[in-house]
Amino acid sequence: MNHSSNDSGFLQHCKFEVPEIIFGRGLLRHVGSCARRLGGHKVFLVSDKGLFHAGWVDKAMRSLLEAGLEFIYYDNITTNPKDFEVEEGTREYLRHGCDVIVGLGGGSSMDAAKAIAILAANGGQIRDFEGSDKISRPLPPLVLCPTTCGTGSDVSQFAIINDSQRRCKLTIMSRCVAPDISLTDPDTLFTLPEEFVCTTATDALSHAMEAFFSVASTTLTDVHAIKALRLLTGSLVTAVRERTPDDLENLARASLHAGMAFSNSLLGIVHALAHPIGGMYDANHGSINAILLPEVIRYDIPVVSDKLPELAWGLGHRANGDIKGAGEKVQETLESLLDASGAPRSLRSIGVVKKDLPELARRALNDVCIVTSPREADADDLLRILERAY
Amino acid sequence: MNHSSNDSGFLQHCKFEVPEIIFGRGLLRHVGSCARRLGGHKVFLVSDKGLFHAGWVDKAMRSLLEAGLEFIYYDNITTNPKDFEVEEGTREYLRHGCDVIVGLGGGSSMDAAKAIAILAANGGQIRDFEGSDKISRPLPPLVLCPTTCGTGSDVSQFAIINDSQRRCKLTIMSRCVAPDISLTDPDTLFTLPEEFVCTTATDALSHAMEAFFSVASTTLTDVHAIKALRLLTGSLVTAVRERTPDDLENLARASLHAGMAFSNSLLGIVHALAHPIGGMYDANHGSINAILLPEVIRYDIPVVSDKLPELAWGLGHRANGDIKGAGEKVQETLESLLDASGAPRSLRSIGVVKKDLPELARRALNDVCIVTSPREADADDLLRILERAY
Repeated sequence: MNHSSNDSGFLQHCKFEVPEIIFGRGLLRHVGSCARRLGGHKVFLVSDKGLFHAGWVDKAMRSLLEAGLEFIYYDNITTNPKDFEVEEGTREYLRHGCDVIVGLGGGSSMDAAKAIAILAANGGQIRDFEGSDKISRPLPPLVLCPTTCGTGSDVSQFAIINDSQRRCKLTIMSRCVAPDISLTDPDTLFTLPEEFVCTTATDALSHAMEAFFSVASTTLTDVHAIKALRLLTGSLVTAVRERTPDDLENLARASLHAGMAFSNSLLGIVHALAHPIGGMYDANHGSINAILLPEVIRYDIPVVSDKLPELAWGLGHRANGDIKGAGEKVQETLESLLDASGAPRSLRSIGVVKKDLPELARRALNDVCIVTSPREADADDLLRILERAY
Repeated sequence: MNHSSNDSGFLQHCKFEVPEIIFGRGLLRHVGSCARRLGGHKVFLVSDKGLFHAGWVDKAMRSLLEAGLEFIYYDNITTNPKDFEVEEGTREYLRHGCDVIVGLGGGSSMDAAKAIAILAANGGQIRDFEGSDKISRPLPPLVLCPTTCGTGSDVSQFAIINDSQRRCKLTIMSRCVAPDISLTDPDTLFTLPEEFVCTTATDALSHAMEAFFSVASTTLTDVHAIKALRLLTGSLVTAVRERTPDDLENLARASLHAGMAFSNSLLGIVHALAHPIGGMYDANHGSINAILLPEVIRYDIPVVSDKLPELAWGLGHRANGDIKGAGEKVQETLESLLDASGAPRSLRSIGVVKKDLPELARRALNDVCIVTSPREADADDLLRILERAY
């Protein structure tokens, strides 16, 4: 195992930072008091048209008004938000003199809200902030309200924006990108289309597993990764098929736990590969992760053997300390979860072109997520993973 | 079970807030950069004479100097810190024009640092802030560095100060009492006298168990409570007896996890009773908790049956879902842990006078910790618990 670890397999030095977290059914009604408590007077509310039609934007607006706040509504954001969209949003934010940002939606709306906060405070173009710790001036107050069950953007130190010219995803990582408040109202999942329940929950699954295997994982992140896995194992399939309120709430909770884990332990090869694929094909992030995850776990298993029994337990198996058996159980359970949830299972099926694989592997080597992979990988290793997942 | 809970036994609405956490051997050398990062120029360093003689205060001072910070050193603090001590500390803080506070030590130094921060920003006397959310003005930046393995003050929203005239403990609870940064260097445990390893670790044990049973517990707090219990079960006895570095580090880590749990789920009857006992007798807080814990758990068990299997697992038993068996296992394991660790086991043995028990029970009814007890208790119930623990 190439972790720099003590006997327990944990890094001895750890940092752990999460925003203030509020979680509960019906709590979107408090978004106004959250924004006001952060000192805001005029809110820049970033959301999307689907949530507007489902009535959630209206609910947020009423809460803002009841808190005595003005607001500007902005929803000119597409899936995998683009640089020019967040640059236009920033101009609107500044033109109206806003002083607090609320992001309501999935990863696209929340990452756009983060990018607008970065540009509003720092100027420049969003590509200037690609990489780790490139942000110098503090961001305006930020409240993020997730309405899907996977992104983790509401607690994470990441923002992912598409560079429309280079057709790639910019990964921005900085502690100041985490919001002030993460507010989850699981009721918002009741109107989420079935396919997004599946793809965002499998995104949470990949967050939890990559966080658990990360070289920067600690006991503080592992407890959240394992809890996310237990919730997902228990509720993913029934939430997708039957949409029971308790199962949907468990997925929202799993997403939160997985987000707390990966924001602090960071990720690995699944995300390092998913970012260039998403950038090149504008494809659904959760679907890409679901396809890559089994192959990356297969690649990682030889170097994370001491963590496999706990992982197997997280996936619902009895703990018996058998490392070899645990590795097989992990892979079997993962495959059957993904099959039963109806997630896509091959890169070909989501439109990836085979001749692009070597370029995707090369781009992944430059993604910040590769740094915390438990097993080192060169372009050939990454290409083999892509070919197996094709 | 009188929790307002969903099917999983968890509160649906939850809040979770922890400071920035830094944990690792040797990291006390970074206390200066932490204080500077918070904007400080002149540090008020609160610690105690034991740590001074062990060399840790010197290490902190050097780190402050290397970060280009001035500092004022203050150690006029006793165990169970008194109102007049923190009021004197506040005068020193203000007189020297300090602008950031570093607390290095056990619960006494850290709670004193918190109380000085409260008074420096808000004026008045410390008793004005007793209870929940009585603090109006924001505190100066605060870095807390625990050097024992139990208090949890470095992450908690609590400060406990002795009212010297009324001979009682004031429990101050407010989100703004949590520090900006919690920095644990487990190396500091290597010089902690054996008896304090035991009494502070049993304090962490009581934090984890009360947090887990609290009516305000959630999945976010439970994962940390259970992790704390697993670490304590594995390392408490060997850490006390053999003082191995890994076991001591595990206790420091357990204290951190337990602190993250109880600061957000709050506590119960053990602490509601321990505060008046500590106030009346100036007795060691961890010792009092170790004595009360088994009796309070016995009292709680009938109303927390759905959480017992997970608790039994946390204490090292195989998970088999048997509730009745789990309750017995929890009690047996707790008793054997406390016996083996050498903690005191009766109120009589630490000098409590029997005729005071009714008054102690009455005072406990007014402590904020009673609010989150899983089982309601009146003065007669509390008196019976005290008599059994006598």
